[in-house]
Amino acid sequence: MAKLALVGATGAVGQEMLKIMEERQFPVDELICLADPKEAGTRVKFRGEDLVVQAADEAVFKKADIAMFAAGTEVSKMLAPLARQHDCVVIDNSYAFRLQDDVPLVVPEVNADDIAQHKGIIANPNCSTILLVVAINPIHQAAGLKRVIVSTYQAVSGAGKAGIYELEAHSQAALDGKEVQPEVFDYPIAFNLIPHIDVFVEEDYTREEMKMVWETRKIMHLPELKVAPTAVRVPVFRSHSESINLETQRPISVEEARQVFSQAPGIIVQDDPANKKYPMPLYSSNRDEVYVGRIRKDISTEQGLAFWISADQIRKGAATNSLQIAEVVIEKNLY
Amino acid sequence: MAKLALVGATGAVGQEMLKIMEERQFPVDELICLADPKEAGTRVKFRGEDLVVQAADEAVFKKADIAMFAAGTEVSKMLAPLARQHDCVVIDNSYAFRLQDDVPLVVPEVNADDIAQHKGIIANPNCSTILLVVAINPIHQAAGLKRVIVSTYQAVSGAGKAGIYELEAHSQAALDGKEVQPEVFDYPIAFNLIPHIDVFVEEDYTREEMKMVWETRKIMHLPELKVAPTAVRVPVFRSHSESINLETQRPISVEEARQVFSQAPGIIVQDDPANKKYPMPLYSSNRDEVYVGRIRKDISTEQGLAFWISADQIRKGAATNSLQIAEVVIEKNLY
Repeated sequence: MAKLALVGATGAVGQEMLKIMEERQFPVDELICLADPKEAGTRVKFRGEDLVVQAADEAVFKKADIAMFAAGTEVSKMLAPLARQHDCVVIDNSYAFRLQDDVPLVVPEVNADDIAQHKGIIANPNCSTILLVVAINPIHQAAGLKRVIVSTYQAVSGAGKAGIYELEAHSQAALDGKEVQPEVFDYPIAFNLIPHIDVFVEEDYTREEMKMVWETRKIMHLPELKVAPTAVRVPVFRSHSESINLETQRPISVEEARQVFSQAPGIIVQDDPANKKYPMPLYSSNRDEVYVGRIRKDISTEQGLAFWISADQIRKGAATNSLQIAEVVIEKNLY
Repeated sequence: MAKLALVGATGAVGQEMLKIMEERQFPVDELICLADPKEAGTRVKFRGEDLVVQAADEAVFKKADIAMFAAGTEVSKMLAPLARQHDCVVIDNSYAFRLQDDVPLVVPEVNADDIAQHKGIIANPNCSTILLVVAINPIHQAAGLKRVIVSTYQAVSGAGKAGIYELEAHSQAALDGKEVQPEVFDYPIAFNLIPHIDVFVEEDYTREEMKMVWETRKIMHLPELKVAPTAVRVPVFRSHSESINLETQRPISVEEARQVFSQAPGIIVQDDPANKKYPMPLYSSNRDEVYVGRIRKDISTEQGLAFWISADQIRKGAATNSLQIAEVVIEKNLY
């Protein structure tokens, strides 16, 4: 049991964390809900009780063993050092510390052992990256990865509650033939696709795309892994999907791959074309597993595998993964 | 000038053909509009006149030099042989004859010369394939193609008027919290993705995917070209998009590729990340060109290029391409 502070308790990921902590009987004996001072005093439900949200400031971290950060990169940069001053272990969902050498970047199904190396901060990876590594790590264990080509189909909830609201309101406006100005996204997202998530950083790749390169390499301890990502926002409320082509070092048959996926942690194989079974975001939502299907040979190369995944990026891509990390920290007394 | 029969004049592609013939001042001096007997007697607009739709039967083909077929594979199989009996040149938008050796499969920007080889039937390729080859052929000319990996984001209008209606009605139902049963698609398409278009045919690839393999090879005269496709239906009304990774035989820089694309026929380069310019289906709709953007190095391989395309698949993917073929047939007197 631990005392937990949750920074960003009123946001999309924070709210999901509260729900998942209830479902998982998460070992917390005191929960301190924090948010922007503007939201202090509002209440959130947790295990049948109303908890009063407090302004996130230094003093509260004194009372917590672990602080879960789910409030964006700027908040993490500002408050995580204060939490550390009070020996509060930080599990951070933002981009702030992910690539620092002394910060383990963890997907428990892949590199849970890295958690023990922490120096006070453990980072939760980017959502698209989490889904990707859960799916490709078992194939790497079985056949060695040489190259990963991935095109994403990312839900609007990746942009938080405001993204969900914008898709809902603007879909209605589009159906009514009304013109509306996009606010959360750069262009209308209703009935459209936007091949641009986060800012452009290098060689005309976006940061969302480069996260899938940098973070995948760090999580899998494969600093040379070749990854070619394309990240696209789609008009789906929840659950990201990815079309993945792998090249492996050793041959792996489709049957073997299906077997490997079905025995891997955190994966549900949903792959029965004859009966029209394959992963879809509408049905992978509100689940913790990564759904894997359309498993087939990549017919354009000798040792290639193609498949399609879908998973709830608010849960496994953020809230669930962070809580899985926290469970290891608590269970192994790493705080 | 030619006498033209249009089979499927009341369908999504047929209606678009009428509109495009008006725009292009298409050289037709008599137009006979045909459809299912159930629709005989209805009227369609063409160049300010109301044309009465007739039942598609053998007799009408006597009066036509060229018959455009836009009514599905079964209709083409049944009526194209009758049209041929009257020496009517068939330009067929269906899958019926595309892979027959004596039937040229044509995208005018790529293989217009094949039209002259026709033996009475010329086939219009699959929509996703047309967009793909318009984009990759210039790179093949410049650097030689070795391998193509493509993931599609296909609009519902690929399933005709009924697909458009279903997305519209079911999006409204979803926003209203109402349950509705999908009819056109196997699963709800509103706010969802379906990684399955057409039937599964071989090695767990769909026919929509294998069309991108078989037809690309035939159009480009590259029977050994390696193509790995993934076809996904997305909740977009109009315009297909594709995420493409190419491997080339000779190196080609991003600058050179951008130059090659910008000089290629049928392409508009829309590629300015700093100013958030890239192709999107909302803006490529109702245009005849293939929009190409997000042009960058494939950072997972030595000689690779990654880019993103979007184009109106009812126009360039079907109606416009068929009419471009017909224009060559008329201009070169190949009927």
